[in-house]
Amino acid sequence: MSGPWRTFPEVTHHITERSIRTYAELSGDFNPLHVDPEYAAASRFGSVVAHGPLGLQTVFESVTTWLGLDALPTGASLEASYLAPVRPGDAVRSRVAEMLDHAGTLVLSVTCTNQRDETVIEALVSVPRHVAPKSSA
Amino acid sequence: MSGPWRTFPEVTHHITERSIRTYAELSGDFNPLHVDPEYAAASRFGSVVAHGPLGLQTVFESVTTWLGLDALPTGASLEASYLAPVRPGDAVRSRVAEMLDHAGTLVLSVTCTNQRDETVIEALVSVPRHVAPKSSA
Repeated sequence: MSGPWRTFPEVTHHITERSIRTYAELSGDFNPLHVDPEYAAASRFGSVVAHGPLGLQTVFESVTTWLGLDALPTGASLEASYLAPVRPGDAVRSRVAEMLDHAGTLVLSVTCTNQRDETVIEALVSVPRHVAPKSSA
Repeated sequence: MSGPWRTFPEVTHHITERSIRTYAELSGDFNPLHVDPEYAAASRFGSVVAHGPLGLQTVFESVTTWLGLDALPTGASLEASYLAPVRPGDAVRSRVAEMLDHAGTLVLSVTCTNQRDETVIEALVSVPRHVAPKSSA
């Protein structure tokens, strides 16, 4: 872990009722857990929560920023564990925490925390080694 | 694989330039690969492509629909492999193709294809067994 790998860009997204509403319209997923505060308050989550992909965006962004890529390349894979819900008002902060260069694949461990420093998502992203710019490894 | 497991709901989302633009505004990711047709035409993808989370929405939706849940529960994990890009005009069709009930965890294999029947994403979604409604297993 040295050289360019020490540069771990952080990405923070602020999740709001408005962004959740916009995502509901985009995806067609108007489940009341995402858009109806009263229904959501009575659910096991206790409040409105963001759609899963919303929090994940920070993972895509921190990884592509770090690698200097426009987007995750074909052949990439992502494994995400949802550890805690993301709610309106949350600031989701994502950063590449570790990396492995293994058998032609870069494996990046990404941690997403909220403003209370609770981990909300942990992700492993694998990309073919050859697509990463030389400057990133 | 019998009983309720035979009911595999399919979910189809139509990806458009408009939905990609909306997602760019939502996420702040205005990478030209997503929003600039001329730049994207010269890239290795050859055209504008959708942000990664956009295609994934169909996975979340087919799994939660099938399980009868409002959303993926805390403790769920998702592993997605990006096999081919999603482009404006694509219809991404997602369905739960297989399932395993293993050691207290339901593991669902989800396949996402486009209108040419090319697989664009393959995903494994794991959810704690106890959160699935009785009717689904």
